Amino acid sequence: MQRVREGTPARFSARVEYDGTDFAGFQVQPGKRTVQGVLEAALARLGDGVEQRVDGAGRTDAGVHALAQVIGFTYAGRLAEAELGKALDALLPPDLSVGRLQRVAAGFQPRYAARYREYRYTVWNGPRSPVRERFALGVRTPLDTAAMARAGSVFVGRHDFRSFGAGDRSPVRTVSAVRVRREGRLVTIDVRADSFLRGMVRRIVAVLLEVGLGTMDETAVRAALAGSGPALAGSAAPAKGLCLRRVALGRRTSLANGEHEER
Amino acid sequence: MQRVREGTPARFSARVEYDGTDFAGFQVQPGKRTVQGVLEAALARLGDGVEQRVDGAGRTDAGVHALAQVIGFTYAGRLAEAELGKALDALLPPDLSVGRLQRVAAGFQPRYAARYREYRYTVWNGPRSPVRERFALGVRTPLDTAAMARAGSVFVGRHDFRSFGAGDRSPVRTVSAVRVRREGRLVTIDVRADSFLRGMVRRIVAVLLEVGLGTMDETAVRAALAGSGPALAGSAAPAKGLCLRRVALGRRTSLANGEHEER
Repeated sequence: MQRVREGTPARFSARVEYDGTDFAGFQVQPGKRTVQGVLEAALARLGDGVEQRVDGAGRTDAGVHALAQVIGFTYAGRLAEAELGKALDALLPPDLSVGRLQRVAAGFQPRYAARYREYRYTVWNGPRSPVRERFALGVRTPLDTAAMARAGSVFVGRHDFRSFGAGDRSPVRTVSAVRVRREGRLVTIDVRADSFLRGMVRRIVAVLLEVGLGTMDETAVRAALAGSGPALAGSAAPAKGLCLRRVALGRRTSLANGEHEER
Repeated sequence: MQRVREGTPARFSARVEYDGTDFAGFQVQPGKRTVQGVLEAALARLGDGVEQRVDGAGRTDAGVHALAQVIGFTYAGRLAEAELGKALDALLPPDLSVGRLQRVAAGFQPRYAARYREYRYTVWNGPRSPVRERFALGVRTPLDTAAMARAGSVFVGRHDFRSFGAGDRSPVRTVSAVRVRREGRLVTIDVRADSFLRGMVRRIVAVLLEVGLGTMDETAVRAALAGSGPALAGSAAPAKGLCLRRVALGRRTSLANGEHEER
């Protein structure tokens, strides 16, 4: 373990990437391998051995990937900014990496600093494909992506999403974009919102897949959003197709005019 | 297990895809999990229980992936062509799949029927990236891809590749194309040849990476190919970046004018 002299506590943010397959999600859970847990253990090895809390902009579920999760943490050890980032990354396992650190204000909390988050859901719309399906849901039946794109626009705007996910206080969220694109057999669904309820992206995707398969129409989508449609409980698309790709940070709480996104 | 009555032995070819990470290569090895071994065991379950040999167009090494390996096998069970393909695929693990079957001539051997093979080597030329590096080699130092493309052309043509790989009889191979492309931080190297010596693609890639890093120039590449350069033993690029993407079949040995390639 590295010898550390105490320094002035400094607050940092960083972009974090992970292959979510072997993580039980972002948030610490006793006895489980989580992104937060692995990051906190690595930071403790670089600091005084005491685990410091690592905050994340999005608490991704088990199996969900991230190209650009944003974390915030306080470090009081002796390593300089550039050294700290490299030393931390070197302690992480192959399925988790940390990008360049940025100094941020003492009160920086990625969860509240984020102006919006963008997730991508990836579908491999073809015969079973082992190489593609680690990061995508395989759907063999051809999807009507034009209908999915139209239905996607139903979600755009400020809505009560209580039938699409478990929330903390208010279930009202503002979705600023839903984009459905096809490139050959690869279908991507990008959803951007100020923040998301738990399971919200995967329930929106489940509904759009129903539309793509022709088992649900736009009227039913509107009804589901209004909470008067069939119960959505359980019908969330599998985690492995989901990836947190972008967290845009606001100016007020970040020293840098930082935007952590996929490079 | 499915009940099977004996049918007329028929010869089939099929496209096979695999994530090579957890396979000890294509070829059967005692006590190891290989692509050929898993396919032969699955076929035995669909047939009379006796393992039939499954031949492949390319004997990919441990950790090497395939989007379009081509196999050939004989089946004497009762299932019709379309059923057989589906039943076989259903018995395979998540990291291995078999595409649509094609009837071929009794003597069909993918290894000899292949007119050419094409491999792609993928490099993630940026900071450590857990999501990209399952199927790519991570190289942090910026690569000079223009220099790599120029050096790649040195390999095109009919050459004695003995310093680039272990061979069976003759080490002479005809490389018809080497293409180096960059898209952002993703660098791909496509190599097409009539056939390859063992380790040949990965040694060509190792040399091109040296060129991209500026530690080898075109003269040194020519010298290496001429067998008068530094010994290449051991300097092969890691398996995880390599993928067999295309096997073009000749007309003579295949009933179909078949070309199995990535879809």
